[in-house]
Amino acid sequence: MPAPITFLSDYGYGDEFVGVCHGVIARRCPDARVIDIAHAVPRHDVRAGALMLAAALPYMPAGIHLAVVDPGVGSNRRAVALRLAGEARILVGPDNGLLAAACERFGGVAEALDIGRSPARLEPVSATFHGRDIFAPVAGTLAAGEPLAALGDPFDPATLTELEIPGARLRDGALLAHVLGQDHFGNLMLDATGAQLSELGARPGDALVVELPGRSHTARYGSAFAEVPAGELLLYEDSRGMAALAVNRGSAAQLLAAEGAGVELTVRRA
Amino acid sequence: MPAPITFLSDYGYGDEFVGVCHGVIARRCPDARVIDIAHAVPRHDVRAGALMLAAALPYMPAGIHLAVVDPGVGSNRRAVALRLAGEARILVGPDNGLLAAACERFGGVAEALDIGRSPARLEPVSATFHGRDIFAPVAGTLAAGEPLAALGDPFDPATLTELEIPGARLRDGALLAHVLGQDHFGNLMLDATGAQLSELGARPGDALVVELPGRSHTARYGSAFAEVPAGELLLYEDSRGMAALAVNRGSAAQLLAAEGAGVELTVRRA
Amino acid sequence: MPAPITFLSDYGYGDEFVGVCHGVIARRCPDARVIDIAHAVPRHDVRAGALMLAAALPYMPAGIHLAVVDPGVGSNRRAVALRLAGEARILVGPDNGLLAAACERFGGVAEALDIGRSPARLEPVSATFHGRDIFAPVAGTLAAGEPLAALGDPFDPATLTELEIPGARLRDGALLAHVLGQDHFGNLMLDATGAQLSELGARPGDALVVELPGRSHTARYGSAFAEVPAGELLLYEDSRGMAALAVNRGSAAQLLAAEGAGVELTVRRA
Repeated sequence: MPAPITFLSDYGYGDEFVGVCHGVIARRCPDARVIDIAHAVPRHDVRAGALMLAAALPYMPAGIHLAVVDPGVGSNRRAVALRLAGEARILVGPDNGLLAAACERFGGVAEALDIGRSPARLEPVSATFHGRDIFAPVAGTLAAGEPLAALGDPFDPATLTELEIPGARLRDGALLAHVLGQDHFGNLMLDATGAQLSELGARPGDALVVELPGRSHTARYGSAFAEVPAGELLLYEDSRGMAALAVNRGSAAQLLAAEGAGVELTVRRA
Repeated sequence: MPAPITFLSDYGYGDEFVGVCHGVIARRCPDARVIDIAHAVPRHDVRAGALMLAAALPYMPAGIHLAVVDPGVGSNRRAVALRLAGEARILVGPDNGLLAAACERFGGVAEALDIGRSPARLEPVSATFHGRDIFAPVAGTLAAGEPLAALGDPFDPATLTELEIPGARLRDGALLAHVLGQDHFGNLMLDATGAQLSELGARPGDALVVELPGRSHTARYGSAFAEVPAGELLLYEDSRGMAALAVNRGSAAQLLAAEGAGVELTVRRA
Repeated sequence: MPAPITFLSDYGYGDEFVGVCHGVIARRCPDARVIDIAHAVPRHDVRAGALMLAAALPYMPAGIHLAVVDPGVGSNRRAVALRLAGEARILVGPDNGLLAAACERFGGVAEALDIGRSPARLEPVSATFHGRDIFAPVAGTLAAGEPLAALGDPFDPATLTELEIPGARLRDGALLAHVLGQDHFGNLMLDATGAQLSELGARPGDALVVELPGRSHTARYGSAFAEVPAGELLLYEDSRGMAALAVNRGSAAQLLAAEGAGVELTVRRA
């Protein structure tokens, strides 16, 4: 049974891009098993994609992890395949920071290959769809059993592009954080960790004040949506281990008018 | 070959939730086959999810049927696995009515287990994502061949939560019905059955009057969209066996301004 | 291992339609492998579906190619299964032009069957969901190894419905083209081929003028998004081999206010 392939991208579901990559993989490895992590990373948002990949990977079987959020496709950014140090996993995608958080989570990179001119690529390589022409065929060829070293040119992992993530910090007894994004339910993911919430000194059940420019809201510090009445705000550690804001049976993004990443907010004890 | 798993939820496609559940299943059962029924159940709409599941299940191979629409996640609602009486099928999901219509359709529940503290669950169990931490790992473990009885604590199926569905009724020669929801094409699904349409005394080709608060429309009683001119209204028995309204090459939801569930309407002979 | 099935439709992701077809296939062929090309063809847009299918098929492994964009479902349009002349591929879908461009691309049709009354269909056949009742069961039965000839009534391929595609043309040194649609990134696909772009006499790097009714824009003729500054317009040959317009890190559809198919535009050298 071939190693499983997971697949994350910002291709969305409005086109045949995802399906074409699946087809290319199946042509290289007819019995490949592909798990779609998600294809709704906000368009060209490398940071959101990187966070999603790093959050999802521990739940994925070890295998080949294809990820494509690639605003620089066709430029001279590298196309890479990276063998992780910590587990038997290979990441395949553009070298623009997208793979960085996942690499860090699994102990760094043991082996790095430039696959931009890989013998596995589809010819001719287009300037706009390397998912189809480089990344998917390399992933499928790996799943079919080809050794990594045969598929590209080795380079020093220390030269890989890093990822910048804004960080939350505690100051004067308050937590200054940023919205990283929102999920399908309107829950807001913050750049603070669950551990930083604890450092705030809040205890489960405590009332907290969430301040945004020009407005403030009261939130309950808890762990389950149902701990607050419908329509009220909950601050909790989400299933990724990050601080998050939710409204029970409602949308925190809507209540706080904080749609979109980057919004700054402050959390303090009431 | 492991039993197939089907998967229905309200997770949508904007996040990695569905993909993470697929990953968890693959870790428990590497050669699992998962069929996604749909993940676009309206958010937290247990009734819509229950109807969709019951409508889809007869077309699914017998196996393990994972369903998650779970507004009460983290509260004390039970997490359950149910063996059906009529066929070799096991349903896995929250005990909030979501599984009720499917259970009824297949002759009731022969064996019920509380899986909230299942040995198959992921530790630690989050308060917000039981799809990942309880339901998917139980489904994957069942697909891998573990016997149902080993995965939870038995309880009396008579204590399962029931599902309330508003019912259409005939009165004074008219059919009073409600919109249950709409599909991708703008077709409106009603809570009336095809049999109730027949009781109305309408015959194929008849003109009918569809009344909503403050407005009324003429519909043709038929069976295929193409039986009415483009832009005109058709009342028909849909592919689920339920009464439905469509506009040929248009949207009934838009024409009737009846977007959203619960809208009441009356159908009478012209 | 059964032949792979690919699946393209306009069913979207808001319902259980796609999932139900997967279930029906799995009941006919338990170890079937299904690759979803896309299900977001604009509703009832046979031409867009036909172009997408023809563009995707060369990247799909040879097998059974299920395609359903079927505004005439329930009318007397034929349901068909077509064996292609050029490769070991069978197309399954409605005879309304949807399959025409793909047939042409692979050397025409060697064998055509009317499957409207196929012994493989689900009984009773609904008037509105032939994807479930005719096309998916025929595809699944083919994947399970049943010979094509057993699944319908042969007819003369010359009677198949053709597809009309508006054509771009060169006149007075300008290229008159139409928007065929847009992708998830806002890139506009035109009905001109890459070859027609070359005939215009433009060379890579040249500035071009793109004229729409009442407005005009300057575009760079190139091949990669990054060749123009962020926010600027690029005219290029896309990954399908067709002329297309993109805005680097932006949306051409938005910049040109040319959302929707059919918009006419003229390209000339600056």
